[in-house]
Amino acid sequence: MAVSMDDDVPLILTLDESGSNTLAPNEELDREDLPNENGGSYDIVNDVSSPATGDYHSQQRSAGHNWEMNYQEAAIYLQEGENNDKFLTHPKNAKALAAYIFVHNHLFYLMELTTALLLLLLSLCEAPAVPILRLGIYIHATLELFALVVVVFELSMKMRWMGFYTYIRHKRTMVKTCVLLVQFVEAIVVLVRQTSHVRITRALRCIFLVDCRYCGAVRRNLRQIFQSLPPFIDILLLLLFFMVIFAILGFYLFSPNHSDPYFSTLENSLVNLFVLLTTSNFPDVMMPSYSRNPWSCVFFIVYLSIELYFIMNLLLAVVFDTFSDIEKRKFKSLLLHKRTAIQHAYRLLISKQRPSGISFKQFEGLMRFYKPRMCARDRYLTFKALNQSNAPLVSLKDFYNFYEVVGLQWKAKRNREHWFDDLPQTAFLIFKGINILVKSRAFQYAMYIVVAVNGIWILIQTFMLQGGNFFPRDVPWSYIIFLTIYGVELLLKTTGLGPIEYLSSGWNLFDFSVTLFAFLGLLALAFNMEPFYFIVVLRPLQLLRLFKLKKRYRNVLDTMFELFPRMASLGLTLLIFYYSFAIVGMEFFSGVVYPNCCNTSTVADAYRWVNHTVGNKTVVEEGYYYLNNFDNILNSFVTLFELTVVNDWYIIMEGVTSQTSHWSRLYFMIFYIVTMVVMTIIVAFILEAFVFRMNYTRKNRDSEEDNGIVLEKEVAKEEIAGVIELYRRNCVASETAQLQKVITQMDKYGQTSMLFLGRRSRTKSDLSMKMYEEEIQEWYEEHSRKAYQWQEDVFPSSTPLQSSGLRQRSQTVT
Amino acid sequence: MAVSMDDDVPLILTLDESGSNTLAPNEELDREDLPNENGGSYDIVNDVSSPATGDYHSQQRSAGHNWEMNYQEAAIYLQEGENNDKFLTHPKNAKALAAYIFVHNHLFYLMELTTALLLLLLSLCEAPAVPILRLGIYIHATLELFALVVVVFELSMKMRWMGFYTYIRHKRTMVKTCVLLVQFVEAIVVLVRQTSHVRITRALRCIFLVDCRYCGAVRRNLRQIFQSLPPFIDILLLLLFFMVIFAILGFYLFSPNHSDPYFSTLENSLVNLFVLLTTSNFPDVMMPSYSRNPWSCVFFIVYLSIELYFIMNLLLAVVFDTFSDIEKRKFKSLLLHKRTAIQHAYRLLISKQRPSGISFKQFEGLMRFYKPRMCARDRYLTFKALNQSNAPLVSLKDFYNFYEVVGLQWKAKRNREHWFDDLPQTAFLIFKGINILVKSRAFQYAMYIVVAVNGIWILIQTFMLQGGNFFPRDVPWSYIIFLTIYGVELLLKTTGLGPIEYLSSGWNLFDFSVTLFAFLGLLALAFNMEPFYFIVVLRPLQLLRLFKLKKRYRNVLDTMFELFPRMASLGLTLLIFYYSFAIVGMEFFSGVVYPNCCNTSTVADAYRWVNHTVGNKTVVEEGYYYLNNFDNILNSFVTLFELTVVNDWYIIMEGVTSQTSHWSRLYFMIFYIVTMVVMTIIVAFILEAFVFRMNYTRKNRDSEEDNGIVLEKEVAKEEIAGVIELYRRNCVASETAQLQKVITQMDKYGQTSMLFLGRRSRTKSDLSMKMYEEEIQEWYEEHSRKAYQWQEDVFPSSTPLQSSGLRQRSQTVT
Repeated sequence: MAVSMDDDVPLILTLDESGSNTLAPNEELDREDLPNENGGSYDIVNDVSSPATGDYHSQQRSAGHNWEMNYQEAAIYLQEGENNDKFLTHPKNAKALAAYIFVHNHLFYLMELTTALLLLLLSLCEAPAVPILRLGIYIHATLELFALVVVVFELSMKMRWMGFYTYIRHKRTMVKTCVLLVQFVEAIVVLVRQTSHVRITRALRCIFLVDCRYCGAVRRNLRQIFQSLPPFIDILLLLLFFMVIFAILGFYLFSPNHSDPYFSTLENSLVNLFVLLTTSNFPDVMMPSYSRNPWSCVFFIVYLSIELYFIMNLLLAVVFDTFSDIEKRKFKSLLLHKRTAIQHAYRLLISKQRPSGISFKQFEGLMRFYKPRMCARDRYLTFKALNQSNAPLVSLKDFYNFYEVVGLQWKAKRNREHWFDDLPQTAFLIFKGINILVKSRAFQYAMYIVVAVNGIWILIQTFMLQGGNFFPRDVPWSYIIFLTIYGVELLLKTTGLGPIEYLSSGWNLFDFSVTLFAFLGLLALAFNMEPFYFIVVLRPLQLLRLFKLKKRYRNVLDTMFELFPRMASLGLTLLIFYYSFAIVGMEFFSGVVYPNCCNTSTVADAYRWVNHTVGNKTVVEEGYYYLNNFDNILNSFVTLFELTVVNDWYIIMEGVTSQTSHWSRLYFMIFYIVTMVVMTIIVAFILEAFVFRMNYTRKNRDSEEDNGIVLEKEVAKEEIAGVIELYRRNCVASETAQLQKVITQMDKYGQTSMLFLGRRSRTKSDLSMKMYEEEIQEWYEEHSRKAYQWQEDVFPSSTPLQSSGLRQRSQTVT
Repeated sequence: MAVSMDDDVPLILTLDESGSNTLAPNEELDREDLPNENGGSYDIVNDVSSPATGDYHSQQRSAGHNWEMNYQEAAIYLQEGENNDKFLTHPKNAKALAAYIFVHNHLFYLMELTTALLLLLLSLCEAPAVPILRLGIYIHATLELFALVVVVFELSMKMRWMGFYTYIRHKRTMVKTCVLLVQFVEAIVVLVRQTSHVRITRALRCIFLVDCRYCGAVRRNLRQIFQSLPPFIDILLLLLFFMVIFAILGFYLFSPNHSDPYFSTLENSLVNLFVLLTTSNFPDVMMPSYSRNPWSCVFFIVYLSIELYFIMNLLLAVVFDTFSDIEKRKFKSLLLHKRTAIQHAYRLLISKQRPSGISFKQFEGLMRFYKPRMCARDRYLTFKALNQSNAPLVSLKDFYNFYEVVGLQWKAKRNREHWFDDLPQTAFLIFKGINILVKSRAFQYAMYIVVAVNGIWILIQTFMLQGGNFFPRDVPWSYIIFLTIYGVELLLKTTGLGPIEYLSSGWNLFDFSVTLFAFLGLLALAFNMEPFYFIVVLRPLQLLRLFKLKKRYRNVLDTMFELFPRMASLGLTLLIFYYSFAIVGMEFFSGVVYPNCCNTSTVADAYRWVNHTVGNKTVVEEGYYYLNNFDNILNSFVTLFELTVVNDWYIIMEGVTSQTSHWSRLYFMIFYIVTMVVMTIIVAFILEAFVFRMNYTRKNRDSEEDNGIVLEKEVAKEEIAGVIELYRRNCVASETAQLQKVITQMDKYGQTSMLFLGRRSRTKSDLSMKMYEEEIQEWYEEHSRKAYQWQEDVFPSSTPLQSSGLRQRSQTVT
């Protein structure tokens, strides 16, 4: 076998690991010649996303520096793996790469987001606008056009990066383009006609937000919702089927009773049973027939038992089941996608000379593009952490851990236990005492008791007040006492534990902010600042501290915090649905309900507003429901929230229906079903997450307290010297400041090596890894069985940046 | 080792299986001498539960026939294992055994049930009685006393059977006794005073029903509910805690607004936020403050998001999780309990001569007590099925399968495929043709289309009708046409498949009953029998047949049928809670609401009943809510159902509260929380059952269609002859009729052996067995590790009937 001994030529190997065997003899040499490698001129590009990089890159290329190119492409592969981007959209040539780099940076992402938000927020100012935000047609249409032009620019960049064929085959992007076109035409029409027409298409503006890089979680949620739809629809049909049967039955049974308005026609019967499904009209819908014949309640009891208590729960069960299944499959595909990305990157990083692994030089080159902000010390530590076999090269097997290791935050392991260890003896003893006190159970329980007493005090105090203005003239003494106690606690804890350790616990952070708020409240009271009174009112929140007491609550609240990002993204998804429905609602129902609007309908009372005098007193009879309207987007959101809560939603529906046509009911019913889908998914999500966590803790009951992933690495002095030497040779000595500092520290304490701790918080993915431990091995095997095919299938079609050329070259060399 | 060679002495061995090794040489002999055994005089006691058995048994004992005693005790052990009765309550002497046998039979169970139901139903006739069922105080008090006396009798029998010490330590029984005493005293007081006092204790009558043998499922549900309570209460506290915080906050924020009645005092604030938790007052509670300041909606949105959408779901998650965990632990303990029962029984069935297993003679003796109705053929087949190693004796390992095998229904495997195989050629061909037609997909789909067309037809027909009397003068032709088609289908299917095969499928049974109902409807129409018109109305139900089409629906409906018994028992559990609350409600709130009762409250409208004339028309304004009262037990049940559905429950609460004191709210709130517990458990149950089933099907995707457990056994002619001989020797030739028939059949077809199929439907326990396959082995190992201890611990304390004596004897023999 003729292997080129040219030191610096990357080799693209097929991924069967035979190479490592045939080239094994070279491995021993690598460690020694590591610093001697000439890795090209190390002009460090600090920001992978600077627009200049494109040019720089092509210069590099023309100079024949293949490594830089490989590093960058490998970094891109790893990013694609992390973001779950398809490799089909991998940039295929230098021009595409330039566009890719231009597009993939936070500045661009922010621009995307702002444009999308601007477009969405425009509906605050358009036609049925929020009164104080109303803008002239010229202004908002021009703003819209401007935003749309920015979107056009974004899309053209995307096309440049993806290539035309991939672009038109990418569904989401195509939909976005179509929506863009429609919006453009409509915006121009508005400008020309100088009046807004019925623009339901504005409901589609959400796509601009959904397509944002930062809204990946929302996209995932939407995908999950759509994937859960088929079983959902199946059960929904069952539900509707029973509804129809009962509607026919109800019509036959109750329509002879003329005092029963709910079943007078089949349509009424259907609508009222649909509403009954939500229980919203429950006893009322039964009452007329019940007053005639008590046994008619059987009809309603059977209906509710079947529909509400059985099929609705079945719906949840089916969605929950699908959801857990999808979660698992998603985890699997993400895992395998990452693995493939790592394989791609690995191919680009091994050199002809050392085909059995990645040397630090190559790894460093990769990290410059993948994580430009990471300092040299951390890069070296990451490399060490990856390198489990402690060989000079990182093999593919070790490199598979890339994503787990790269997120670690490195810190030198401190020798001292407390922050005050270096202080003089007396001070040390004092602080040590405080430390012991603060950590003692007695202190904790004393604080719990104080909080409980405070809580009861507040409750009693509030109970004594009876209406009126509560803003006291002077600060109550109880407030000062409790605040003093909390202040002392805060002081003791910060001094006893050190501010860093103190604030590293979420609960302490909570205590801190509550105490701070209480202090602000005191100021507000002392200086009579009434608008800040709400701070005083928030005081009872500190009772939450009591929930530290029980393990289950800690568990629940921890889960709550863990779930928070996903919950927020689900909430955002719901808001996107809200937005679309709000736009449609505003276009059709804006201004249709007002006080006393619905006097002919069955819900007239709820909309009544009468101001009459009885004797010499003015009595206002207010139904208030006219407030639940679609007059502007904010009102619409509130109305839609009320519809989501479901109770009495039919009053809103009937009110609007009586003022428009009875087809309006369709809008409300569809909205109900959509929110039912989303809500069921939210419930399924909470269930899944919680049950998963409980199962996890049950499985690992005797394992250590959960405080994230921790890795320990020891680094010798000469290693660091070697790394510094490497950097110096490559003229980037400026990056080695951290490493120099490490050496200085070692000298100071007279150590020859130093321990570092890598730490990161545990993610759902880590939990899943542990839960599906056994299955993961199967997946991997299955995946590697397909690996050869993948080599053959994926590569020729998507021809990555250099590989084809290189493969050719390596063939010629061979 | 000196083993007594006395042929007929049972040996109680310690359960380590060393015995089987030391005594192995004897095993070969067993097969031959099976018919020669002299097993005592075989006076077959056909009914284990006849009261005479006790006497008979003691006679037997005095005659020294230990085997009969052992058989009976083994059967009792196996029954205890099956019913999950504790071995602590195992009868300890002959008197206890007599009582045990007297108590454990269906006649006694039925008496228990009737008494309990009588006591419960009495509340229909007592003081606030259902008008048409009102009875005089003398009558119902006497009835009650009579029922209570019967309960006393039952309890005394129980005490006789259990023994005094076990009796007073058995919690449920003790509670029952106390309740009985109280009821007795109260019934006598009622009789003496001749007027009913406030008898809240009647709410405790449920215990008589719960304690019934037939209500085991209800007891299990209650236990499960109580076991799920601790985590439930934890989360409930979290919920209430947030409620209190928000109540204080809401009071401070909204009480300055005097037009807002919902937050005027802290109590109002609390009550209304509690109601808001159920969403029952949702937009209304927000409206007054919302009309003042639109931003106040934030308070309500945050409250609902935290409480309703997060913590309530958390509640479900926690309950679901606990529920699944409990289900698994319950399954484990049941499994191990059965195993222990089998061990106990096994010890009693092995003889001194053959300590390595149970011979057929012993097994037959056991079955006479355990399943007196089983015929000799089936007993022998069961024995064969147990005997997996085909050795003459059934070892303990094989005997562990007892419960799985004993439920099998045995049938000779038919050689013919269709019922018409024996008919002459022409008829055969015709029926074969019909068979193929009926089984073809085309025929099925044609029927689906007919059903769909029929459904659409009915829908359109109903849509055309507009109110009035629908009873048509003559039978519509469409009705006749469709009925004819269904009739033809029914005829074809029964002839094509044979009536037995046809009716063995649940779906066909459904088709059959629907068609029958349609036919009855036709008769009702033809003969103008209006009261039966509901049959015609039920027609749309046949659309359910369409749900056969899709696999998911079949799955759902199958699960539904599987769940039905558990659902029914859960429903019954709910009814028991209803009963208690209904009694309390009747005692306190009977007669407090009536038309126009609550004019001073905020819900006056709902109770208004005004009959006034506008112009020359009489307008009735009816609020109807006065119908939701506690005036008798039936009304109370309906009211409680309305409270369960939750919507507008606060109207009922406020109505009652305005007429009584504001402490009444406690009743309604506690009821809400109780139903919330039960409902959450029902949801968790449905979820668990469904998800379990889905996981099961996913795990066994490629396994056969689910048609129960099937076992095949071949029996040779000489074996049967041997068994007949055995029976003949023991003078019970009357039992061998079935066996004789088998021999006759074999002779007819000239076979030397015959195949039998044992079949039973798959239960949840079978599914669990398969799901937890791996873990079960661990449990068994753990269990057998404890077995030695169990020998030592359990036996000396509970000293079963004979074992202690026998152990002594066997020691002396040795």
